[in-house]
Amino acid sequence: MHNQDPQNQTSQQQMSVVTLGVADLTRSKRFYVDGFGWRPVFENEEIVFYQMNGFVFGTWLKDRLAADSRREAGGSAGFSLGHNVATEQAVDTILARLASHGGRLLRAADAPPHGGRRGYVADPDGHAWEIAWNPAFPISPEGYVTFGL
Amino acid sequence: MHNQDPQNQTSQQQMSVVTLGVADLTRSKRFYVDGFGWRPVFENEEIVFYQMNGFVFGTWLKDRLAADSRREAGGSAGFSLGHNVATEQAVDTILARLASHGGRLLRAADAPPHGGRRGYVADPDGHAWEIAWNPAFPISPEGYVTFGL
Repeated sequence: MHNQDPQNQTSQQQMSVVTLGVADLTRSKRFYVDGFGWRPVFENEEIVFYQMNGFVFGTWLKDRLAADSRREAGGSAGFSLGHNVATEQAVDTILARLASHGGRLLRAADAPPHGGRRGYVADPDGHAWEIAWNPAFPISPEGYVTFGL
Repeated sequence: MHNQDPQNQTSQQQMSVVTLGVADLTRSKRFYVDGFGWRPVFENEEIVFYQMNGFVFGTWLKDRLAADSRREAGGSAGFSLGHNVATEQAVDTILARLASHGGRLLRAADAPPHGGRRGYVADPDGHAWEIAWNPAFPISPEGYVTFGL
């Protein structure tokens, strides 16, 4: 399926940090702290970090992120972040909460072809979140999510 | 620091899926499978999934992602993904491996103000990855990453 690595220089299958550019930290926190109900593990005047399920989530002033990465926004082929919930009903509840805390509904919840239920909402900086109920993906009490069919 | 939630409708502090739009799955796999050395847990003609440290990483044909999320690429304030490595030397090794497997170096490795070492590389679809050695962030043998100062 792929080339073997003769020198065994592969790297751990692990993503450490997801960092989103934001224009205004207070506006962003309204969505993540008041909307999702998440708690920062660290914050200062330019960045807010959240400890997630096995990695760190950062919201960083977009100009700082662009300068650090030598990368302006808009150069990628698009992305979305997923937040899976435990019940079908919670999809609509969370979408509505996020939309009332600075989010913008992109797609109202409905059933995707693979089953379950999902909708999309953009955070105040235009980052797309899919809120999904997907019974095929187990979620541990600690929030660790496993692929399933 | 934030409003209390009187109805206790907060949602688990958890990200289930990170999905990147890609133009060509074979080209993308050269970067992730041959460059990083990661192994898909599932793939078909439109998507490749990787089981990560507590969540699922997907690379999906960008037109499908845009249609599903009702969201064209380029509408967000920028983002980067981080991959932390165990040693200072590994930063340069992995950056070079990724650059030779379809990646484009955005920033050569150097020392950030907070210490450690990092550089940035874009995947074949323009998604920015920071490859970092950051001794303050513990990484478990299973790849779970914890925020540290």
